[in-house]
Amino acid sequence: MRWAAEIAYLGNAFSGWQRQEGTVTGQGTFEKALSLLNGRPSTVEAAGRTDGGVHARGQVVSFDTLRDWEPSRLRQALEGNLPQTLRVLRTVPVTPDFKARHNACYREYVYFFWTGDSCYPHLSPFVWHNRRWRCPRTRERLRECCRLLEGTHDFRAFCRSGDCPEDSRRTLHVVSLASRGPLVRLRIRGRGFLTNMVRIIVGSLDDIAKGKGDPRWLASLLQGRPREEAGRTAPAQGLFFWKAGYEPSIWR
Amino acid sequence: MRWAAEIAYLGNAFSGWQRQEGTVTGQGTFEKALSLLNGRPSTVEAAGRTDGGVHARGQVVSFDTLRDWEPSRLRQALEGNLPQTLRVLRTVPVTPDFKARHNACYREYVYFFWTGDSCYPHLSPFVWHNRRWRCPRTRERLRECCRLLEGTHDFRAFCRSGDCPEDSRRTLHVVSLASRGPLVRLRIRGRGFLTNMVRIIVGSLDDIAKGKGDPRWLASLLQGRPREEAGRTAPAQGLFFWKAGYEPSIWR
Repeated sequence: MRWAAEIAYLGNAFSGWQRQEGTVTGQGTFEKALSLLNGRPSTVEAAGRTDGGVHARGQVVSFDTLRDWEPSRLRQALEGNLPQTLRVLRTVPVTPDFKARHNACYREYVYFFWTGDSCYPHLSPFVWHNRRWRCPRTRERLRECCRLLEGTHDFRAFCRSGDCPEDSRRTLHVVSLASRGPLVRLRIRGRGFLTNMVRIIVGSLDDIAKGKGDPRWLASLLQGRPREEAGRTAPAQGLFFWKAGYEPSIWR
Repeated sequence: MRWAAEIAYLGNAFSGWQRQEGTVTGQGTFEKALSLLNGRPSTVEAAGRTDGGVHARGQVVSFDTLRDWEPSRLRQALEGNLPQTLRVLRTVPVTPDFKARHNACYREYVYFFWTGDSCYPHLSPFVWHNRRWRCPRTRERLRECCRLLEGTHDFRAFCRSGDCPEDSRRTLHVVSLASRGPLVRLRIRGRGFLTNMVRIIVGSLDDIAKGKGDPRWLASLLQGRPREEAGRTAPAQGLFFWKAGYEPSIWR
């Protein structure tokens, strides 16, 4: 029986999502819990792979169970086998051909900045403490950049060296910047992403915040320039895999 | 030169606020940092003492420095001597007779509940995961209790056994319950509090959420009943010392 589940995890608790011999990953941890339930080795697929240190709020996974379950019982049973750092928010039965990765029509990431002089210790594991994004004029310039990023471009400059596929064109549906007091939130929604793409976008925007680059430089990067010309990869801890969208929705 | 500072700390990093030989406390940690700056043993006073596990967002402290400082330099210098679990949000010079504890005209605590089936691991150190507070009808009943708690009462039943002063009458200015999705927030503002008072109030309200007590029972507790008749002490991790108020405000 095929299922989808919405899960959340602490980025700093895992060496990324993808299963890897000898390290604790989100996928490896989930598969261990699922295998206990199924009584045999079982695999799971996620809507988006996250790097080590990247948090997930609304990651979606798909997997099979050998027997029928009441959805909320399955949720509880999985959580019972999982550490506190990885939680199962909801479970829903899906059609046998559903695949969390393939069926997702969009993925949304949110990157948080804290721009105050000092950062609450309760928030610091979840934000990039960066005062450069504080100035409203800077943020206005960055908003102009967000508009440039939207649409279809060759994002080669925004992919980790060595990981770039032949076709590095991707489409971003939404790139928006909002703030509430010292907390700044960058939201990026797209069909698919290259490795480290969001973090390299953030690092490049930060170069613009520093005054090292300008919107014209960003526009030129979007024409398939090499990785070295873009900014640094921003810290993982400010990044959340926020949600994945399915059409029609898989949630009741 | 006398100063006030607003500080925030992680409850789980400290065995409470108050200095205590052989354990790591908020006060002990702050005094160590301040003593390094002053080059001699220095003390600090807080608006409210917090128990082990209780978080602080807007704790206010007062202390002296031996020399003149530019306020933001002092903030940075203190933070440089402090662990990441205790941060200094702002510093302001005050008159030499200012005392964070004595001069506070109110203290405000906020208690957070998470009422969803599962709790985001990012939030779980900061909430009491308690599904009983989810039902809107239950919360309506609890709001009625909040109104009963407001005003001046004998809170003897809401003070840790053995710690109750002769005069256990206290005044609560605001007791309010709000929710946003599965997150429920109880706000309690008063001039002064007894030991564990907020947590015993929360534990007693939880008895009402369980159906074990009703508003009439709560009203009777407010007439100086013994500790045993009130509810259990709620977990520390949902509680934040939110802010302290001064008249006139000490912040520019």
